[in-house]
Amino acid sequence: MHAGGFYSAGSREGTKKQSTMRGYKKPTVSIIGASGYSGAELAKILLRHPSVKLERLYAHTQAGKKMQDIYPAIDTDIVLESYGGATDSDIYFLALPHGEALKLLPSLAEAGKTVIDLSGDFRLKNHEEHLKFYSREKDPAAVLTYAMPELYHDDIRLAKVVSNPGCYATSIILGIAPLVKKPVKDASVTSVCCTAISGLSGAGKSAKVELSFSEMSGNVRAYKAGMHQHTPEILQALDTDTLNPAFNFMFTPMIAPLVRGIYTVLNIQLEKHLTVSQIREHFREFYRSAPFVRIRNTMTEVQHVAYTNFCDIHIAESSENGTAVIITAIDNLVKGAAGQAVQNMNIMLGYDETLGIL
Amino acid sequence: MHAGGFYSAGSREGTKKQSTMRGYKKPTVSIIGASGYSGAELAKILLRHPSVKLERLYAHTQAGKKMQDIYPAIDTDIVLESYGGATDSDIYFLALPHGEALKLLPSLAEAGKTVIDLSGDFRLKNHEEHLKFYSREKDPAAVLTYAMPELYHDDIRLAKVVSNPGCYATSIILGIAPLVKKPVKDASVTSVCCTAISGLSGAGKSAKVELSFSEMSGNVRAYKAGMHQHTPEILQALDTDTLNPAFNFMFTPMIAPLVRGIYTVLNIQLEKHLTVSQIREHFREFYRSAPFVRIRNTMTEVQHVAYTNFCDIHIAESSENGTAVIITAIDNLVKGAAGQAVQNMNIMLGYDETLGIL
Amino acid sequence: MHAGGFYSAGSREGTKKQSTMRGYKKPTVSIIGASGYSGAELAKILLRHPSVKLERLYAHTQAGKKMQDIYPAIDTDIVLESYGGATDSDIYFLALPHGEALKLLPSLAEAGKTVIDLSGDFRLKNHEEHLKFYSREKDPAAVLTYAMPELYHDDIRLAKVVSNPGCYATSIILGIAPLVKKPVKDASVTSVCCTAISGLSGAGKSAKVELSFSEMSGNVRAYKAGMHQHTPEILQALDTDTLNPAFNFMFTPMIAPLVRGIYTVLNIQLEKHLTVSQIREHFREFYRSAPFVRIRNTMTEVQHVAYTNFCDIHIAESSENGTAVIITAIDNLVKGAAGQAVQNMNIMLGYDETLGIL
Amino acid sequence: MHAGGFYSAGSREGTKKQSTMRGYKKPTVSIIGASGYSGAELAKILLRHPSVKLERLYAHTQAGKKMQDIYPAIDTDIVLESYGGATDSDIYFLALPHGEALKLLPSLAEAGKTVIDLSGDFRLKNHEEHLKFYSREKDPAAVLTYAMPELYHDDIRLAKVVSNPGCYATSIILGIAPLVKKPVKDASVTSVCCTAISGLSGAGKSAKVELSFSEMSGNVRAYKAGMHQHTPEILQALDTDTLNPAFNFMFTPMIAPLVRGIYTVLNIQLEKHLTVSQIREHFREFYRSAPFVRIRNTMTEVQHVAYTNFCDIHIAESSENGTAVIITAIDNLVKGAAGQAVQNMNIMLGYDETLGIL
Repeated sequence: MHAGGFYSAGSREGTKKQSTMRGYKKPTVSIIGASGYSGAELAKILLRHPSVKLERLYAHTQAGKKMQDIYPAIDTDIVLESYGGATDSDIYFLALPHGEALKLLPSLAEAGKTVIDLSGDFRLKNHEEHLKFYSREKDPAAVLTYAMPELYHDDIRLAKVVSNPGCYATSIILGIAPLVKKPVKDASVTSVCCTAISGLSGAGKSAKVELSFSEMSGNVRAYKAGMHQHTPEILQALDTDTLNPAFNFMFTPMIAPLVRGIYTVLNIQLEKHLTVSQIREHFREFYRSAPFVRIRNTMTEVQHVAYTNFCDIHIAESSENGTAVIITAIDNLVKGAAGQAVQNMNIMLGYDETLGIL
Repeated sequence: MHAGGFYSAGSREGTKKQSTMRGYKKPTVSIIGASGYSGAELAKILLRHPSVKLERLYAHTQAGKKMQDIYPAIDTDIVLESYGGATDSDIYFLALPHGEALKLLPSLAEAGKTVIDLSGDFRLKNHEEHLKFYSREKDPAAVLTYAMPELYHDDIRLAKVVSNPGCYATSIILGIAPLVKKPVKDASVTSVCCTAISGLSGAGKSAKVELSFSEMSGNVRAYKAGMHQHTPEILQALDTDTLNPAFNFMFTPMIAPLVRGIYTVLNIQLEKHLTVSQIREHFREFYRSAPFVRIRNTMTEVQHVAYTNFCDIHIAESSENGTAVIITAIDNLVKGAAGQAVQNMNIMLGYDETLGIL
Repeated sequence: MHAGGFYSAGSREGTKKQSTMRGYKKPTVSIIGASGYSGAELAKILLRHPSVKLERLYAHTQAGKKMQDIYPAIDTDIVLESYGGATDSDIYFLALPHGEALKLLPSLAEAGKTVIDLSGDFRLKNHEEHLKFYSREKDPAAVLTYAMPELYHDDIRLAKVVSNPGCYATSIILGIAPLVKKPVKDASVTSVCCTAISGLSGAGKSAKVELSFSEMSGNVRAYKAGMHQHTPEILQALDTDTLNPAFNFMFTPMIAPLVRGIYTVLNIQLEKHLTVSQIREHFREFYRSAPFVRIRNTMTEVQHVAYTNFCDIHIAESSENGTAVIITAIDNLVKGAAGQAVQNMNIMLGYDETLGIL
Repeated sequence: MHAGGFYSAGSREGTKKQSTMRGYKKPTVSIIGASGYSGAELAKILLRHPSVKLERLYAHTQAGKKMQDIYPAIDTDIVLESYGGATDSDIYFLALPHGEALKLLPSLAEAGKTVIDLSGDFRLKNHEEHLKFYSREKDPAAVLTYAMPELYHDDIRLAKVVSNPGCYATSIILGIAPLVKKPVKDASVTSVCCTAISGLSGAGKSAKVELSFSEMSGNVRAYKAGMHQHTPEILQALDTDTLNPAFNFMFTPMIAPLVRGIYTVLNIQLEKHLTVSQIREHFREFYRSAPFVRIRNTMTEVQHVAYTNFCDIHIAESSENGTAVIITAIDNLVKGAAGQAVQNMNIMLGYDETLGIL
């Protein structure tokens, strides 16, 4: 595999977008990996999207079945196919297990397609971290624009091939970024303790005893404490060295008995005490052009964002000694995956960012 | 395999029981199949039982692990073993997948052990039905005492080897038996429509996508409508021909998002209208010596019986044209499996029926 | 209150509809009773509806609050108001507790508004049954078109004021109607045993211990067996006398630990045995122009219809002696309330029936 | 009210205990506040306890009802009474809303009864904190022995009247105490970030919309961030000034869709890096005579401790810069309330600490 020019932001020739948009037909979309939860959520959103046409659904293990037989709540007659290299759609979403996009993305990118990859395959710039967390050899240069619209809107707009952020990473980065990327005076961040609760759809559609209803009803379980693959992704997006970060970063992910949602509690140590309202106003200012980030005065809850593309953020507390408690909530399948991916598509196609996801 | 005398009730020589009980030591117990939910529930109950000693836990796939590592809520140091034919305990519970008890039970029975089998292997007298529902060849005579204490207390008391009822069967038979086994005047039963909701522990500890939390949260699903293996068991216990029953019997089992419990709604058509209070008094009289059956004036609920050995029964309605609506609730792992099995052990050993399970 | 002409179907003058549709502006909509679950679901659907404009939300107890503060997942700036008799919108949805619509609907109807009432206030033709189940005096003639689109499409199309069906009633009527309204040869229905499981949103947004998470997690509970107010509604829609029905009808509703959905098991006794495929084809034919009824070959599940306006129907079994087991599933808040109400609005306005709800 | 000698540990004359134990009768027990979840859990445990006799259950609002009618899973014929000052039992458990024990405890204590109070009324030594968090005037000296057996075993053994710890406090204190009370060399604690997820039974048996199944299913919500009444209790038990603690302490409690359990993640900043195994061995040593604390090598889960009196602790991570991640799990109704209360009773009566709760 050759790491071509498409890996870097801004590589897209303007004309390509034009040609897609100039005609009278809506751009066509394919989803590769349509049978998992993120793929299905993508299908549901794209079927209702007013300005693209969902054309093909690929899912190797379910090829030949109707999508509706697997997800009866999704109203479509499209039949799942095995992906064999087709490039007939204008836009490709890759919702594949980690490692699979590595094989398929380059040829799609080279064919000039608009590609949004939901896997972690092309997210990490630090190659050692990539190998450590994803265990897949690849061209170290094969890293894509990290498509978090609230932070990299312009890069996304110019890119043809992007990497969609991880679900935990989305909920965490958005809750820290304003304090790290644009610190308030001397109040720089010295440490972050993060605990996050994920709904079980985050573990994918899989046959595992420990994910069964009988095992998870009434249960809570942490896992991968200090070892989650989203840690380097978070640090990278916060502009700090992933191996030697500018601030101490601790992350404990947990699963609890809910299907959708990530609820994140951030204890952020600042060098200087800021009041809750100072922090809140700073966040409001930072996200003033972000249509999906809501800085809320009252406590966030998972049900406030479930089935939506919102990321809700509440500044819960700020102690005298400078620890701010910030709580964020997203739907892991929407803002944490499919919704953010369509948001990115909208930006890449020059559409209104909220089209089809508000 | 030779179907020996142990298959019929009353075959036990009185002396065996005596020798077990005469000494100063508590009888010892082993569980074969201790790693599933029924086996674990048995272990939990037997560890607290005041008059037996839990000695060995067998589980082929988990051999070598401590029981407490698999079920940390169960406080014991016993290590799981692979069962190799030992007969050193006085009492054996078999909590194995259907088909497995067929191989192990005969030698335990012939060694004179007290055996309670929780599988369906030895329940059905009609051999064709056995083959149809359990698909295992066996000696057609190999049928054990059907150990439902409320109906066959004396047989159980005299037996050394018994078959513990199925969970759905328990919840259904107890709700119909008084009207079929001892009909009120001319009010014989002409048809029964039965729907029953089971907790997901009834499906066992298994790795299946369709039993995952993500698939079952917020979901309800019927299955095996008209084809459940408990249907012949129910009809047999109600003294009617399983292939040509005296009354029409329809059964639709369902799973819903709970772990424990079976909630059964019976629409029983009688030839004559009986009032709710007539039926209630008839049930009270029928079950007057059954310590675990409670005829309740108010609506039954699963939470009223969860983690108990009770079967609660409520006569909800009786229409003018003779349809009685009777609702029963049990905990599928206790009264529907492990609790009833210990109740049977108590009876077989001459103990108070409620010892260790009230 | 005077029971004017608007209570009977067909009373609408054609011109009114025209005037609404002829102009360039979308018709405007108000919801009275917007703070309950059905009202909120209506708001969510109507905000995305392409051909009407949601204008006002009324909710007495929450007046002054922003809708989004109560339901943060619903993206709107509309502030809840107390309803004081305004008639400035073109269309009114009433999602009020039983008894409240009695007071408000007449003046809206007389003002010529398109009105869809989600309560039971105007459903029952038999006045005694109305008094028995709803305990509210009213003009016995005040009964509206029963707006179940699959059965009364033409009446709805011609009506300006309709009564939206109840949630249980929807799930039950759709599963029986083909066999009662258009019986297959001699196979008329002689009795129906119905058990239905409802999600807890069906009990409304209310502060009750018995509806708390701690009481309902892991629980199942029947209630109102034989006494549910939907029974006369069902019988009336099936064209039989509610007090002296042509077939025996038993109904046991239950609640289980899910939020959305009604799962209904119908044991329908026919005078003659029909095969599963005969019944299935009959249902397919009966519902061939009903875009939201799906006759499925495989088992229905609540998750297949959750968050959709579909009613899924599966013919699960048909015994030799003529008992058919038919299972239906709907989302109680969508097809059982808000979705069906918008479907009715679409029909009344001459829109495509599926607009905004597919 | 006069703050008599009973408020301080060690005030009990040895003879009292003797007289209780010398006779042949089991000591008798009453529960005041038996209709809430903690009271019911106490009743369940005490009914099975081999060495005390549960005699009376008091519950003002439910007086006259049988306990079994309110909690059908609890098998007893005891009828609930209104408490009018009786002192005929030997032991009293008070499971009342905060503020109620203030009124009842003194006369029980002065009558020489063994009293275990589950409320927060007598926990805080700092009177200002008491007023701030419990808003009840009382004698500032009225503070009882803080009955956490793992820390204050000897004080409890000598006391006749004790205050049972709060549920969150139990789960948090046990996870920090070894590092604060007996620091490893120079590794003193400089800050603690604590997030804890509680089951909804912790909110009591109450009629609130926000605790309904429909609102909490699929939801997570933090509350009282930085303002929970257990914060001063925790600091006090950790021997530091509650207003000016020796280490920074942040606490964010949350509720999630489970009934039982508290799952606590502690990020503890130490002045020096200790390895996971150093911390683990230190905890094992610290708790070596605590029968209910288990230091586990593998991840803790709520289901490992649900329905048990165990507190499981897992050292999940220890970063190079000295942040240790420690995770604890308890059942809030057992180790967090009723179980710990019986453990205390066992100690106060000179019984084996585990009697009736293992």
